[in-house]
Amino acid sequence: MFSYNLIASAGSARAGMFHTPHGDLETPVFAPVGTQATVKTLTPAQLEELGASLILSNTYHLYLRPGDELVRDLGGLHEFMQWRKPVLTDSGGFQVFSMAKTRKIDNDGVTFKSHIDGSEHRFTPEKSIQIQENLGADIIMAFDECSDPSDHENVKIAMDRTHRWAERCLESKTRSDQALFGIIQGGVNPDLRVESANFIASQPFPGIAIGGLSVGESKDEMHAMLDLVLPCLPDSKPRYLMGVGTPEDLIDGILRGVDIFDCVLPTRLARHNAAFSSEGRLNLMNAVFARDEQPIDGSCACYTCKGFSRAYLRHLIIAKELLAGTLLSIHNLHALIQLVKDIRGSILDGTLEERISTWQTQWAGNAVRSAGIE
Amino acid sequence: MFSYNLIASAGSARAGMFHTPHGDLETPVFAPVGTQATVKTLTPAQLEELGASLILSNTYHLYLRPGDELVRDLGGLHEFMQWRKPVLTDSGGFQVFSMAKTRKIDNDGVTFKSHIDGSEHRFTPEKSIQIQENLGADIIMAFDECSDPSDHENVKIAMDRTHRWAERCLESKTRSDQALFGIIQGGVNPDLRVESANFIASQPFPGIAIGGLSVGESKDEMHAMLDLVLPCLPDSKPRYLMGVGTPEDLIDGILRGVDIFDCVLPTRLARHNAAFSSEGRLNLMNAVFARDEQPIDGSCACYTCKGFSRAYLRHLIIAKELLAGTLLSIHNLHALIQLVKDIRGSILDGTLEERISTWQTQWAGNAVRSAGIE
Repeated sequence: MFSYNLIASAGSARAGMFHTPHGDLETPVFAPVGTQATVKTLTPAQLEELGASLILSNTYHLYLRPGDELVRDLGGLHEFMQWRKPVLTDSGGFQVFSMAKTRKIDNDGVTFKSHIDGSEHRFTPEKSIQIQENLGADIIMAFDECSDPSDHENVKIAMDRTHRWAERCLESKTRSDQALFGIIQGGVNPDLRVESANFIASQPFPGIAIGGLSVGESKDEMHAMLDLVLPCLPDSKPRYLMGVGTPEDLIDGILRGVDIFDCVLPTRLARHNAAFSSEGRLNLMNAVFARDEQPIDGSCACYTCKGFSRAYLRHLIIAKELLAGTLLSIHNLHALIQLVKDIRGSILDGTLEERISTWQTQWAGNAVRSAGIE
Repeated sequence: MFSYNLIASAGSARAGMFHTPHGDLETPVFAPVGTQATVKTLTPAQLEELGASLILSNTYHLYLRPGDELVRDLGGLHEFMQWRKPVLTDSGGFQVFSMAKTRKIDNDGVTFKSHIDGSEHRFTPEKSIQIQENLGADIIMAFDECSDPSDHENVKIAMDRTHRWAERCLESKTRSDQALFGIIQGGVNPDLRVESANFIASQPFPGIAIGGLSVGESKDEMHAMLDLVLPCLPDSKPRYLMGVGTPEDLIDGILRGVDIFDCVLPTRLARHNAAFSSEGRLNLMNAVFARDEQPIDGSCACYTCKGFSRAYLRHLIIAKELLAGTLLSIHNLHALIQLVKDIRGSILDGTLEERISTWQTQWAGNAVRSAGIE
């Protein structure tokens, strides 16, 4: 049900097809984030039109509100949010561990306080799997511990715990129509990253995620870890780089062999009036755009760029009209999804090598890393 | 260019076709309000899909921001907001006269302060027409004075001024591709309403608006004024009841011979979590909907009702997700537009008389009047 077919490669870059119960995913793929069972400001029809094929939703948020059992009783996430294509849920681990001041970790799980009402809750590997089974995504994630990446001793403790929890997640899983991905940790420590990659690769996961990157380390450190980890992984399974990233990060990740990405950046930038473009990132609130008749990006084929001027978008922003966020979200998501599709096409037709430097130059002006809870 | 064809009638109710440079309008018609060159939270594609054919935009708001000259330089309102069907602008009078404390009226015009930055501005009939010519809507409105409806002496002064201003608007108009509508005033005073109707009907306007209603008077008073005014008007011109209304008001207006309506109510209710339905108005934040799998209205064919449950909509509201406003706006606008289309169909096929009481009963639970600046 969850087989991965490698169709073509170019160096380490891969073009493939990942089969899921809600349709086949062409990889590499970029997944918009729909934290609370909605990609902020967009309807599923708009997401489909802009080219989305996989949506990520957050277990932590949905567990607290509206509750995973309610989502289950209403037919699961696909039915609840009316998204008929594949869905991925994270394990809730990243959000819980982000709350450094209020959570308590032990070898069995984590106790934490709700950001909504301060109430106390507890996640264990078994609980995370149970919640994700209630939510019903196609791809679910093992419960892992994401620690401060540079403290070797604590990273080792967190990694060992992550490995034990990965085994417990595999054991507690009951649904056959969900693919459980294991998560590699190990911070920015080469020895731990390799150890974690080898351990997770040895387990019967249909897909493998790389966690704990793009959380504050440098770009060189991230690249070094990817260069170490990816060669440890089997060709037969999709690789998912969690929470990444910028256009540049996507290019860098695909070149190293990553298949799946997600990031809040496109929709978050949209809410801050910023747009990706092949000229570099634009802040549409800037007065320079007040009379600019051009679309955000003349080379973009999204709904927003097909008709709306920068001047109109700026007017919406200044007038505090919510349509600004919608139109910018459509553009930013389309831009990243299309970039990944274009790169996939170039892997398939053998033109990656000649085209990649153009993309790298074109998108470099959009680089800024981002992390944390949306 | 702006001929009106009466196609069928049933009692005083009319089904017609009003020709404009941006397409033919089937009347009666309900126009969504796009105050700042956007119907709040919706793309033009969504407006078209939900059945909108005419959009109203506000001269006062666009004059202040982004400025009518900027809109003109960017190709006019249709191009600016990417709405290819007919557009109507009001004259700015209603908004200016709403600012009772800060505006000063004289026989030549009105001086007022911007709600944005307190700066002083002046509208005259000529200025209003000039702004509306810059904006470039298909239907534009004469500059009128909307006064306290029950004070006979002041209503008479305002009405006489409105008539002089109507003549000045006709004289100052230069564009032939815009239809200038005159506006009937007269408050809730029968003699003044009849006088105003006869005067405006005598002028060479291609369409006639009824202003100064739905501003706080009772429903009976509004009906009494409509019953007096409409028989004074020629069959050959469309009649526009400004700022109305609720589903009930639309039914009542169509039965009396009104052809065009606009109101902020559907989108404003959406932002307050309320939805029209054939069961009466629903507040989707209500806990009773937390596990309700039904759509807002099982008999509705809009995008929202085709898939989304009340439970999901409530979740979006509770989680403060903007998609709630979008989905409720789609439904509320579709509901009113479809109601008007259904009534039009029944005028055409001769079934209005037998069907009207069903509609009146079904939609009575949605009644609440509303007025003012959105």
